[in-house]
Formats: sequence, C-alpha cells, structure tokens
Amino acid sequence: MAKSTKASKSTKSGKTAKKVNSKAHPKMIYFFGGGKAEGKGDMKDLLGGKGAGLAEMTNINIPVPPGFTITTDTCHMYYEADMSLPTWFEKDMKTYLTKMEKIMGSKFGDPKNPLLVSVRSGAKFSMPGMMDTVLNLGLNDETLAGFIEKTKNPRFGYDNYRRFISMFGNVVLGIDKDAFEEVIEKKKKEKKIKKDSSLQVGDLEDIVKQFKKIIKKKTGEEFPEDPYVQLALSRDAVFRSWNNPRAISYRRLNNIPSNLGTAVNVQAMVYGNMGNTSGTGVGFTRDPGSGEKVFYGEYLLNAQGEDVVAGIRTPSPIINLKKDMPDVFKQLKDITDRLEAHYRDVQDFEFTIQEGTLYMLQTRSGKRTVQAALKIATDMVKEGLLSKEEAVMRIEAPQLDHLLHPRLDPKAKYKAVAKGLAASPGAGSGQAVFTAEDAVKLSSKKKCILVRQETNPDDIEGMNAAAGILTSRGGMTSHAAVVARGMGKPCVAGCEQIRVDEKKKQFQIGKLIIKEGEIITINGSTGEVIIGLVPTIDPELSGEFAELMKWADEYRRLGVRTNADSPKDSLKAISFGAEGIGLCRTEHMFFSEERLPIVQEMILAETTVDRQAALDKLLPFQRNDFKKIFEAMNGLPVTIRTLDPPLHEFLPNKEDVEARIDLLDKNSEDYDDQLASINLMLTRIDDLHEMNPMLGHRGCRLGIVYPEITEMQVRAIIEAACEVTKKGKKVFPEIMIPLIGHINEYKNQKEVAERIANEVISRRKAKVKYMIGTMIEIPRAALTADEISVEAEFFSFGTNDLTQMAMGFSRDDAGKFLTYYTDKGILPQDPFVTLDATGVGQLVRMGIEKGRSTNPKLKVGICGEHGGDPESILFFHKVGLDYVSCSPFRVPIARLVAAQATLMEKDSLAKPTKRKKAAKKTAAKKPAQKAAAKKPAKKKAKK
Amino acid sequence: MAKSTKASKSTKSGKTAKKVNSKAHPKMIYFFGGGKAEGKGDMKDLLGGKGAGLAEMTNINIPVPPGFTITTDTCHMYYEADMSLPTWFEKDMKTYLTKMEKIMGSKFGDPKNPLLVSVRSGAKFSMPGMMDTVLNLGLNDETLAGFIEKTKNPRFGYDNYRRFISMFGNVVLGIDKDAFEEVIEKKKKEKKIKKDSSLQVGDLEDIVKQFKKIIKKKTGEEFPEDPYVQLALSRDAVFRSWNNPRAISYRRLNNIPSNLGTAVNVQAMVYGNMGNTSGTGVGFTRDPGSGEKVFYGEYLLNAQGEDVVAGIRTPSPIINLKKDMPDVFKQLKDITDRLEAHYRDVQDFEFTIQEGTLYMLQTRSGKRTVQAALKIATDMVKEGLLSKEEAVMRIEAPQLDHLLHPRLDPKAKYKAVAKGLAASPGAGSGQAVFTAEDAVKLSSKKKCILVRQETNPDDIEGMNAAAGILTSRGGMTSHAAVVARGMGKPCVAGCEQIRVDEKKKQFQIGKLIIKEGEIITINGSTGEVIIGLVPTIDPELSGEFAELMKWADEYRRLGVRTNADSPKDSLKAISFGAEGIGLCRTEHMFFSEERLPIVQEMILAETTVDRQAALDKLLPFQRNDFKKIFEAMNGLPVTIRTLDPPLHEFLPNKEDVEARIDLLDKNSEDYDDQLASINLMLTRIDDLHEMNPMLGHRGCRLGIVYPEITEMQVRAIIEAACEVTKKGKKVFPEIMIPLIGHINEYKNQKEVAERIANEVISRRKAKVKYMIGTMIEIPRAALTADEISVEAEFFSFGTNDLTQMAMGFSRDDAGKFLTYYTDKGILPQDPFVTLDATGVGQLVRMGIEKGRSTNPKLKVGICGEHGGDPESILFFHKVGLDYVSCSPFRVPIARLVAAQATLMEKDSLAKPTKRKKAAKKTAAKKPAQKAAAKKPAKKKAKK
Repeated sequence: MAKSTKASKSTKSGKTAKKVNSKAHPKMIYFFGGGKAEGKGDMKDLLGGKGAGLAEMTNINIPVPPGFTITTDTCHMYYEADMSLPTWFEKDMKTYLTKMEKIMGSKFGDPKNPLLVSVRSGAKFSMPGMMDTVLNLGLNDETLAGFIEKTKNPRFGYDNYRRFISMFGNVVLGIDKDAFEEVIEKKKKEKKIKKDSSLQVGDLEDIVKQFKKIIKKKTGEEFPEDPYVQLALSRDAVFRSWNNPRAISYRRLNNIPSNLGTAVNVQAMVYGNMGNTSGTGVGFTRDPGSGEKVFYGEYLLNAQGEDVVAGIRTPSPIINLKKDMPDVFKQLKDITDRLEAHYRDVQDFEFTIQEGTLYMLQTRSGKRTVQAALKIATDMVKEGLLSKEEAVMRIEAPQLDHLLHPRLDPKAKYKAVAKGLAASPGAGSGQAVFTAEDAVKLSSKKKCILVRQETNPDDIEGMNAAAGILTSRGGMTSHAAVVARGMGKPCVAGCEQIRVDEKKKQFQIGKLIIKEGEIITINGSTGEVIIGLVPTIDPELSGEFAELMKWADEYRRLGVRTNADSPKDSLKAISFGAEGIGLCRTEHMFFSEERLPIVQEMILAETTVDRQAALDKLLPFQRNDFKKIFEAMNGLPVTIRTLDPPLHEFLPNKEDVEARIDLLDKNSEDYDDQLASINLMLTRIDDLHEMNPMLGHRGCRLGIVYPEITEMQVRAIIEAACEVTKKGKKVFPEIMIPLIGHINEYKNQKEVAERIANEVISRRKAKVKYMIGTMIEIPRAALTADEISVEAEFFSFGTNDLTQMAMGFSRDDAGKFLTYYTDKGILPQDPFVTLDATGVGQLVRMGIEKGRSTNPKLKVGICGEHGGDPESILFFHKVGLDYVSCSPFRVPIARLVAAQATLMEKDSLAKPTKRKKAAKKTAAKKPAQKAAAKKPAKKKAKK
Repeated sequence: MAKSTKASKSTKSGKTAKKVNSKAHPKMIYFFGGGKAEGKGDMKDLLGGKGAGLAEMTNINIPVPPGFTITTDTCHMYYEADMSLPTWFEKDMKTYLTKMEKIMGSKFGDPKNPLLVSVRSGAKFSMPGMMDTVLNLGLNDETLAGFIEKTKNPRFGYDNYRRFISMFGNVVLGIDKDAFEEVIEKKKKEKKIKKDSSLQVGDLEDIVKQFKKIIKKKTGEEFPEDPYVQLALSRDAVFRSWNNPRAISYRRLNNIPSNLGTAVNVQAMVYGNMGNTSGTGVGFTRDPGSGEKVFYGEYLLNAQGEDVVAGIRTPSPIINLKKDMPDVFKQLKDITDRLEAHYRDVQDFEFTIQEGTLYMLQTRSGKRTVQAALKIATDMVKEGLLSKEEAVMRIEAPQLDHLLHPRLDPKAKYKAVAKGLAASPGAGSGQAVFTAEDAVKLSSKKKCILVRQETNPDDIEGMNAAAGILTSRGGMTSHAAVVARGMGKPCVAGCEQIRVDEKKKQFQIGKLIIKEGEIITINGSTGEVIIGLVPTIDPELSGEFAELMKWADEYRRLGVRTNADSPKDSLKAISFGAEGIGLCRTEHMFFSEERLPIVQEMILAETTVDRQAALDKLLPFQRNDFKKIFEAMNGLPVTIRTLDPPLHEFLPNKEDVEARIDLLDKNSEDYDDQLASINLMLTRIDDLHEMNPMLGHRGCRLGIVYPEITEMQVRAIIEAACEVTKKGKKVFPEIMIPLIGHINEYKNQKEVAERIANEVISRRKAKVKYMIGTMIEIPRAALTADEISVEAEFFSFGTNDLTQMAMGFSRDDAGKFLTYYTDKGILPQDPFVTLDATGVGQLVRMGIEKGRSTNPKLKVGICGEHGGDPESILFFHKVGLDYVSCSPFRVPIARLVAAQATLMEKDSLAKPTKRKKAAKKTAAKKPAQKAAAKKPAKKKAKK
C-alpha cells in the first residue's frame, strides 16, 4: 500500500477505528441509482446540496449515474478522530461500491471492465469551485487496459489516465499543478505542437510515466495503484478541502457557518467525449439574466464537462441540440421541465450524453439577477406553479437594493484602485472635491464626488450637492454613511487605504496622488474606488417589482415608515410605499445658509431673552419646513424628533474662527466689536467642547436645560399642523423626544410639549390630534421602559445609539477595529449594519415587553439604520414591533422582508435568507473548525 | 372672622369638607399627656419625629406638657384638597383641645384662665429651623387679661402678646418681620433705650396696638382675636411651610423625600420666664463633640427657649443647675439617664422649668461628630447598653470619611470665593500652579495646588506632586476626581465659576484674578475654594475606630479590596484593612519619565517587530512594578487589569509637537531625521484621534489588535509572580481583561494570556496559581454574562464605564448638565457617585445572575468608584457580590457598610442610612409635592 505523507493519515484510521469499536454503527452512506435513492431532497444538512439533489432526481426517475453520498456527519467524525475514519466505515463503503457495480455492470478495479468514479464535495450551501474534486478515479495500469478495450479508444484512455494522475497528485497529494504542466509543455515543445489535443497516444503514455515519477519524487511514495486506496485518499482530501483557505474565505464572505462540514459524492463516471453521439452541457430552465421563459444554455458534442467551462471550443446554444440529437433534446427538455415543476423554481442543470444516453449530473436552483428573480416569481404565479406567498418568499431582499440606485454599467471594464466600506449603494462619478463649499460651488456646473476624512453636519449641503461621498474614516453608520443612505447617494466610507489631505485638496493611495478636479468613480454597492469615469445605468422599477411589492403588502404585519427630513425625501418614500415618517430629524433643517447664523446666534446667546429672540427668528423657518412635509405626507403620520445633536455641531471650526482675526481691518471702527464677537465665538466653542460628544450634552438634555428650544420646535410643529389642517388636509404629528434615559427627563419635556401644543391648538381653534413619545436609544431607557411608557404614547428604538452604548462602540471611531473584528470573526457582522440580536436585541425586547406591560396601547417602532436591514427586520418582526422606519430607498426592502417574516411564521415556506439563520443556530458546536485549528494541547498550572 | 389672603384658604376648607362627607373618618389626631399617649415612638411616619418623641416620652412617664399631634396624613389631605381641611376635622380638633384643657386645668380662649399653646411642625426627619412655629397662641385682648392675672406679671403678659402677634403676622399672614421690628426700634429710639427688655408695660401695650394696625393695613383684615381661628390658620401655615423654599432646599441637600409631609404638634405652653424658680435649657447626655460620658448642656434661669439660642444672655453650664435647683437637677439627670437608656442612644433634649416644675419639651438622638459617634458606640457596648451589632449600625458611614483625610481646622475662619464639586475629600493649601510640570518642579520646594481646566493621564506625575487638585470641568468621576480619590488627595472638580487660563497661568473668578504662585486652599470635602492659607489638621485613627472596624469585620459578608496601582497605595490600603487588590491599573505605570518615551516608541512602531522591540524594553519595568506590589500584598490576591486607555493618551498634545518644529536647528545634520520623526508623531496623533475615545479603540480592543501588548503584560505579571513565589511569598495574580463586550473578545485575550502564562510558568518551573477574568463594564457584557462566564473565572463590574454607557453620560462632559439634573431633581443623585440601582443596577444584577447561572463558581466583584459609596455598597451586598474594591481611603467605609448591610438583613436593627431608603420607597406617590406645584389644569386636544 502507498505511503505518502498524506496517505499516512489513512493508515492511522485503522488504529482509531479499533478504539471506536466495531459494533452497530450509524448510517453514514446513502445510495442513489437505478431509480431509487436512500436519501431525499430535503436532507441537505446530512447529504449536502449536491447529494440531496442527486437523491431527489433519482427518486423522481431522472436518469442519474448511480453512486453514493458520504454524509456530513462522516466529515465531523473524520475531524473529531483527528483526520481518520474507522475500519468499519471502509468496509461499509465497499458494500456501496458493489451496489454501483451491479447497476453499471462493471467492477471497481476490474482489469477487464473497470468502473470509474468521480469523487466530489457537496456542502449544504453551494461553494462553487472552492473544494476539491477527483475524476476518473479507479484507473491504474491494469484497469486502463480494460477501459481502452471497452471504449476502443487508446488515446481517450491515456488522456483520462494522465488527467486522473495529475488531479490526484494535485488534490490528494498536494503537489503543485505546475509540476505536471511542465511535463506536458516540455513534451509539446519536443513535438513542436501547440495543443494538448495534438498529443499522441505514445506521448500520453510517456507523460503518464513521468507523472508517476513526479509523485514518487515529491512524496517519497509510489502512485497508489489500488483503486480503494485511491478512493479513500480522495475522499479524505475532499473532507480536508472543507478547511482550505479559499473555502474558509468564501464561507466568511458568504456568511456560511464553518461548522457544517461537507458531504462526499462518489458517482459512476459517464463520458461525453466518446464520439459524436456523446456530449455535455449546462443550462437554465429560464433566462437567469432577464427571467424570460426560454430554454437557456449551451453544449458541446464529444466533450467533457471541463471543456465547456475552459472555453477552448465555443459551445453551441442549447437549441441546436434539437437538430443534432432531436430525441435527446426532447428528453432533456422534458426532464428539465419536470425538474422545474418538481422544484417549482428555475433549475440550473448539468448533463452528459454518453453514446446517445442522457445523464443528468446535477440540478439546483439557478442563481439569477434580481430582475430575473422578480420576473420568474411573478410569471410562476401566473403559470400556477407558485402561490403568491411563495413568490414573495423567493425574492432575496438584499438584492432589491440593486434596483434602487444608479449602478455601474455591468458591461463597463474598470479597475478599482482602493476599496472601502460599501456604505450607501449606487454608483457615481465626478470631479474630486475636498470641501462641502467646493461641492456646492461646482455642482451647478459639474458633477463632483466629495472626498473627506470624515463628514460632519456642516457638510450636509455639500453632500447634497455631490454625486457621491468618499471618506477615509468612519464605519457603516458614520455620519457620511447614514446621511448618504438617507439621501440615496452612493457612499464609500472608511476607505482606510486613502489618505485625504483636505488642505492640499488631494488624496493619496499608496504613491498615487489624486488632485482636486480629477474625475473619480465610486461604487457604493461594493466599496470600490475607481480613477476616471465609469458609465452608470439608472434604476428602473419594472412592473413585476411593483406587483410583487403589492403581494408583499398583503402579508406583512409590520408597518413600514421612512426616515425623511424634507418634502422631496417624503414624496420619494411614499412612491416606494412608505406609510408615514418614522423619523424626521429637525436639525438638518438648521444647516442651510440663511438659518445657520440664526442658530449660532441662539447658541451664543448669554441670556434666555437673547436666546428666545434667536429662536423667534427660527420659528417661521421650522414651521414652513413642517408645513411642506405635512402637505407631502397628506394624512400619513409624521414623527418629528426634537433637536438632537450637541450644539457645537452648529458652530464653525475653531481654526476657521481664529483665522478670521487675521482678516479683520485693524483700522476699522468696528474692529473692537468684531474682535469681541470672534472671541465670544471662540469662548463658546471652548465651552461647548466635549471629550465624548456622543455621551454629552445633546438630545433631550438640550431641551431640558434650554426649554425654549423645545418650545419653539413644538410651536412650529403644531402651528404648521393647524395651518395644514385648516386647508382641509389631515395631519398626524408625533412629537418624539430623543435620548431619554430617565422618566423624569421625559416628563420634563412632555410637560413643555403638551403645554405649548395645547396653547397653540386652543389659540388657533384647530382640531389637531398629536402624540408625544420618545426614542429608546439609551440602554437605561430600555431597562426602565416600564416607567417611561406610563407617560409615553409611543416608543421608537434608536438602534444606532443603542448599539453604540450597549456595545461601547463609537460609530465614528469603530472603523479602527471593527473591520478587524469582522475579518477575524470576533464579531459575526458589523453591528451597525445588522442588529446584534444576542446583545442589543435583548434591550429591544426588554424595551417592548416592559413598555407594553404598563401601557398596552403603546405604539413601538424603530428608526435606527437597522430598520432597512433584512436580517434585523426579521428580528423586529419577531419581537413584535409595530413598524420599522428606514431611508426611502430601503422601503421596498423593508416591505418585502416584513412580508417574508410573516409568511415564515405561517408555515414552512422556503426562506431565501435561511443561510444566516442556520449560521446562528449552529454557532455553538464547531468540531470541524476546532479540530482543524489543531491547537497544541495545553496544561494550565492551576487546580 | 378674619379674611386675609392666606386666611381665605381656611374659609375654603368649609366648602371642601361638605364634599368629602362627614361620615366616619380616619384617625387624624393623636393625643399625649397625663402619662398616656395615643401614639408611640415608632410612629415617626405618621406623627413626625417630634410627635413620636412626645408620645414616647409621655408613655414612659416623662413630664411633658400635654398636647396632640396632627398627622402627616392630614398634611397630605390638606394638599390634596387644594389647601383645605374638612369641617369634621375642625370639630375633631376641638375635642382634643378639651382633653388638654382638662389636664392643664385651663381653657382655650377662657378670659379668666386661658390655655395657651404652641403650634410646631414635626416631619419624619428633623429639619431644624426650616419650617414654621407659632408660640403663645390663644392670646387676645380678653385672654391677655386672664393670663396677666394668672401670672401676676403684666409686662410678661404684654411681652408674650406682642411676640405672638408679630410671630403670627409673620408666619401665618406672611408679613415681613421688619415691619414689626421697625415699630420696636422706633419705640426704643423714642424712649432712648437700647434693649427690648427695657421696654415698659405701656410701651408694649402701644406696640401691640401698632402691630395690629400693621396687620390690618397689610392684609386688609383685622388680627383674628378668635383663638380657634388663630389655631386653624397657624396649623395650615405650618402645613404650607413644608413647601417653603428653605425647606425644599434643605430636603434636597439632605436627601429627604419631598412627599413625606409634616405633622403639626399643638402643645400647652409652659414658661421658663416666670421668675427665678423658672428656667429653660438644652443638653446632651454625652459630649457630642468628643463622645465623653459627661452631662453636657446649658441653661438660663427666668428665660424662654429663644433666649438661650439668641445669645443675648450667656447661659450657664448645666452642672450649675445642681447648685441653683438641686431637686430639679436630680430629676433632670434621672430623666435624661432614663431617656438615654430607653432610646439606647445619646439624647439631645430641651427642658423648661416653670415655677419649680420640670417639663421636657423634646428629646432626640443627638447629632455628634464621627469621633464622638465612635467613642459613644464603643462605650455603650462596654456599658452593656448596646450590642456590638448595634454599635456597628450606629456609625454613619459617610462620616468616617472625615477621619481619613487632613481637614480644615474647624476653628479657622475663612471665606470661600467659589464652590465646585467635593470630588475628593480632605483639604490642602499651596501655591497655584497650572501645569503638571510646574507642580513637579515646585513640589520639591513648596506645596502647590494644581489648577487645570481638566486633567488627563499626562498630568499624573503633577497630580501626585501637588497638595491638591482644582479643575473647572468634569464631574465626580472625571479623571481628576478619580485619580485624586485614588491618591487620597483633596480635589475640587468641575468648579464652573472659575475660568482657567493655562497659557497665562492664572485663573479668574468673576473679576478676581489669581496668578501663578498665589496661595490658595481647597476643601475637597465641601468643594470650597479659598484664597490664602487655611490651617489644616491631620487624620488620626483613634482606638475606638480600630475596635469598631474589627467588630464590623465580624459581621460582614462582602469582601473589601482596594484599587491600588503602587506598593505605597497597597500598603496604605492594607493598613486600612483591604483584603486584596481589586483593581491594579497597569497604565499608570506607563507615565513615568523614563517609560513614556518607550511607550511612545511602541505606539509609533509601524511593524510588529518594532512594536515588539519597544515592548521588550517595557517588560522589565512592568515586571518590577508587579514584583513590588506582590511583595507588598504578601499573599493577598492582586487583580491586574491589562492596558485600558486609548493609545493617544500616551502621546503629547498636537500643539506641543508642532511647536517642536520651530525649535529645530535647520543647519543641524539631523534636521531631516528630526523633522521626519516629528511628522511621524503628528501623523500618528492624527491617526489615533477619536471623536468619542470613551467608545473607541481601547481596553481589550487594543490587546486584540496588538496581541503583543497583552503578551508583554502577562509575561511581566507571571514572571514577577514566579520570582516572588521563589522568594517564599505567596502570590495570587488575577489577570483581568477590560472592556469585554463579546465572548469572542474574551476568548481571544484569554488564549493569549493563558499561552504566555503557562509558557512562563513551565519555563521557570514555578508553582504559581493564577486566574483569568474580565471586567463587566459594557452593557452588552452584562446582557451576555451567561456566555462570558463559561470562559471567565471572575467578573469585576466596572461601574464607572457601565454607568457611562448605560446612561449615555460621558463622565468628562456630564458636568455640563448633571448638576442641573440633580439640582432640579431630574436625577435623584449623581449616578457616578451613587450607583443608579433602578437602571444600571439591573445590569449589575443581570450580570451576576446570568454569570453564575452558567458558572456557579464565578467570583464577582466591583472595582468602579461606587465600590466606596455607602448606598451603592448596600446594593452590592443585596445583589450578592463577593467583594467591593475601592480606593484605599474608602476601605474602612466599605468595611463598615458591608457589616451594616449584613446586619440589616439579620433583624430590624435601626439603620442610620434609613433616610435614603425611605426616599426610594416613597418616590412613586408625591401628592404633597404635586399639589404644591399647582399646575394649571390642562386639557389635551386628543381623544
């Protein structure tokens, strides 16, 4: 028996097996073939996706080459037993080989009539190309002869043999592919030929010999001629490939748990390259790009599967098969139609025709674009294949995002020079600018991208003017990201590779310097930064989209509102189906050019009288803002949050103010006055400076210390409501107090709001119904929700702040380590993107339960960024929120997920985001992963 | 009937009463007199402290003038009925007057033999002088005659009459005292006399007439001659005085709930000014200053109570009474001895002798200094009066603080120019300095006070060098406050009245400018700032103190550890009774002159290799630190926290670094290198800048991204432990990972710590037992404590950070609104001083319960600042912590409170801090307060 380094693992298995004992053992292998399979289609956990599919196809009488599936449990057993399997398992496997032999009429290792097999991985979730495969297994010097006699094709035999040896050498024995390639290249040079296919039988025979020498040289062992040894080693290699670096990285990127393990499928080989009555192909039952109901795919005659993929020969469109082999085409069409009907979904299938006989090698749900997904789902409802509920479940919510923003033309070729966080989807191009002012100036003439280290509320106008935002700092909920998402603008945030020099008006990536005015493109859906212009295409909402959304609305229980601060955003959100405003931030209204000076006047005021005077000037502006929003929302509820950010956000930078001193004319009469006013500003900036503004004097704390601010805002809201009401429109204002931590804070602000509101209403003699409620965004508010809800009419969870405080992450700073955390798996995901259900979620649940315990009528929503995240919405549905509120562009996503959440409760409809759920369920036990890490055993020097 | 503004309230009462109905009503009045009382000493809630005391004295046969107590429930009823009482109540009151009349043998309003009464407030907790009192009530033109006839003293009669009218006018009718004073002054001028006592009967008669005119003029109503009206109005005035501004402010300062309401005591007047067989006095059964068992007090013959207080005549020491009136003295001594024995506590009593008859007017537990409290408690145990348990309960823990720091000489006279937060107790004087460097420089020669806007870790050496710290910003747990308390140095923090100009090296209070070098004194126990030197006296731990502490240790269940970062602090804490170190911060060790440059080298390192090189240099320093601490702690456990603060704290100010550029010699050969190194520093400072460092890259997040830092620290700890162990001392290091929010963070750091520790132990072949655990200071850690405790051996609650994050208050910034919050009653107390049990406390409780649910052996402590706060310690005991850890100077306080907490559980021992408990219990219902606020009735324009 061969004794390569890797093979020694197998030898070891004998030893372990003895320990395990050889009594009754669990079923570890499932047969399929001859129209009957031991497994079923729903056994993906145990058999993997491929294995379950092969079993299912076999059971519904689809012609599938026979074989057997070694379960994922075996994979766990293999890892747990330190990379070995017991002897009883090896025995078992042989009995299954015998079954295959019976069906195929050939024998594994039979020199006359050898059975050849493929050994393939097959995990629960498809990980295309990530794990290992060995084909043509069972060939050796003896069986080759039989194979050649059977196929009457010596060249085909030797070609398969050399392919098998190199594949085995590479996959199982870990020898670099190049070592084998070199031999072939040398032979071709020697023969002065260019193509592999020009190699003659003798050449291939020689190559086989050389390949075997390489194996002997590299491993110190002979190539294993024993087919059983080949099989055992290949099987183990597939198990090990579960933990190869590219598989690990694929799983991380695709959110697949690393503890699932893989199944192994051993299946009889069939050949599409046995002449012109043989062939191979792939296809879809519908067009996966457009969703059109057309038979879609391609094939090659006299070819193996890898030839279709390799692109050396151009495959024919599948429709041509009708001419080439009409019977086979009909059979294939019938079979795939049956498969689609059976699985009630578009199928992505692989087939091989061996000497006129059709074999289906694989079928699975076809990956498709979101456009196609929508078309297919709605078509299938019309065809009676799916119910509306099922159609709704078939759409992957995150994909909808692609429909809602301009995106890079998929045909465009480009190269990204840096990658940041995909902070706000969509793409945009324009001249790089480095200040908000420049953005505003340039935007009337040309498109621009605002590039900043990080943005702050001062930059709002500039962000609004820009076609996109690029920042070098900040996470998924940094100011730039949140505001950009709200505006529906593309944003790449926290792009740490770039160094922004705002003074020099340039940024740098390595040695590459990009100066102001140079055109750049950002792709906020991927985080890519590109130099130069890349064409984009505009979003379009096709009819199917609207139709599916309507169906979703029939099922969902969760309300969907939007976060909008302007009439424009409000209208956009309504067009996307929003049922109200869940968060209208009043502070964004403070930053426009004409208002900011008045806001600053208010902040600089040293007496209540002066402050009131400034507020009186702001009142008409705010009232007008609210009137327009109320009119736009036309009877839908509007939740307005009173002033939230710390006051210093409204003051200019200290450096900028200091610079003004130099600009003063010392001879001017006003010099002293001007200097004094600048110094006052500097003093106030100093006074308002905070070490941790996120935990500082903001939110209701402002309204409590300066009740006149709350008074002005409530007056503006209610006066606007009265005026719009008198015009005959309905208005439902909901006044929301931010950053409540203690019931007394809420009572204080509620008293102010109620007093002013009632005063305005009775003075104006208008009939306006309003509500007063609070944000739940401080952990203490959730903990004491039963106290607060006695006084509050509604709660709205501010999950951004709640996450910040509950986890102790500043969203502005967390970029420094959060990427590291998610990369290294310390956190499963960015908690500012997907709510941390385990931790922060407890506070949400507690807030709802406690809140309703003392006030059963309490209305509870969420207006943090998580309101637009699919996985978070599922959680919000589960804990019984009344509504979610998200940025306008996420409203359709929220509607869809809300419907899916309800449907998932109803019955066992297949769920597209199931994968993430599985990831959680199984997060506790990770044997495969653990064993793979192979830590040295530790002894601790304590009792 | 009189009809003043205030009187109209009373008129109204008739109306309300009808509504209430006049059926059976609750008992609202309790009689005492004639050796029997309806009330009891433990009915303080209902009868107030004074009323309960009078009842108790009556019941044990102490001679007390008869009377009755109107309950605190009546006060609530009065406020709830919009300042009125039902008619049945007025009828009831008359029946009680009749009872008094029977005992006194005189009649209320009887022109021949009038009964005069006093009307006094009496709340549950003594509020001396805060509420109103009316004496001599019942006098009018008619009864005056009878009174004169009875006392045979017309001058005495008129003098009492004019006193009564002016007192009534002031207290009940709200007329300014000055209006009455003026009349007297005018009369004295007219008569050319100086003393009131020189006024003759005719003068007084005239004064009475003028007083009545004033009342008519000011109120538009005649002075009420009807004694019942006088009584009803006075009673109501006392009820109303519960909500006078000075009472409200006293309650706030003394943590007395505002919803308790007051009782009213109506008691027969007795007179100490009826000749030389009459007199009045006050006394204590032991010296309230020293605690010595001496009869202590003073008296005046032929005088009224107010004469003793007024200080016009000098009272005699009480011992002289033995000569003056030996029988009365003996009776008094007997009575007060009985009272002390009865109440088993030092009594503070008031008495009056009317014509040879002794009346006790009041007795209560005597307020005493902490020294006296200790002496009295231990003496009483020796005398058999108290058990040791009771003695332990008798000491008010917060008072102990006075014993543990130098304090201002109580005899010194001074005037404070500003007041900040009493951030760290004790007092200190010295020259004002404005930088840490200056403090270090000056301290070798002279004492100095470090004055800063706020301090940061850079200032540690300076703080250590200074005699005290004064800051204009920051709250009770600002850096300055925390570090100062740790150092046992006086600190006044957040003194917003002062403006510190660190550049000019001066600070300003209003227009007063204090420059560098001027002597100032700060009192960290009161927050006072004083210009000039005020003498201080040193702390002394008397024998009784040590004895009582020993007793406390017998009872307590909670362990007491200390927060100490140096051998010096460790030794001090041990001398105060600490049982280990609960928090040793390693970062303080990084700031000394020789180390900081290496720390900066580490931070500036761009590769792991460079960083490791710097860490290798730090290792011996840290190891040496730990060795010394382990040696000092000699077998007691030492919890060492790995690096916690964000790295930027170790870098200099950006401005300072920029300034270095100008100092470079451009002609120097090294110029380019030096410039490059400065620029590198500037880049790193920029890189490390954080918007909210409190929620940024710090704690375990550092150790995770830079595992080599944790490795170095663990190596230093365990190497030190090995070395000290080999010397034959025991060492129990506990490695504590800070700022854990997710189990994966903990696992990551635990792996590093365990690996290094075991490697060191096996290499050094030492027997060292160590533990690894974590801080619970992020809300999420408490919420997921069941996950974390599976891996952790101990938890230590970091309640500073936990409070910051759970409440969303940055301790560095909260000063801006927290003072406002506590002043306005929005928060009951500063949550950084006393743990917010309602909110943050839930997380602590959850952390303990969840932690122990999955790891029953889990050791749980607390090392936040709350570990030294009495009320918080009671909470920590209740929720079942294993130990608290506090700064060395708070260790005795923690020991005492821990014992009291255990004893309180055992039985119903009287509890000195009961007041605060009551405050919480009753916080829900506040009728008295509510009605007093008298909000206008509101109608809300919604359903």
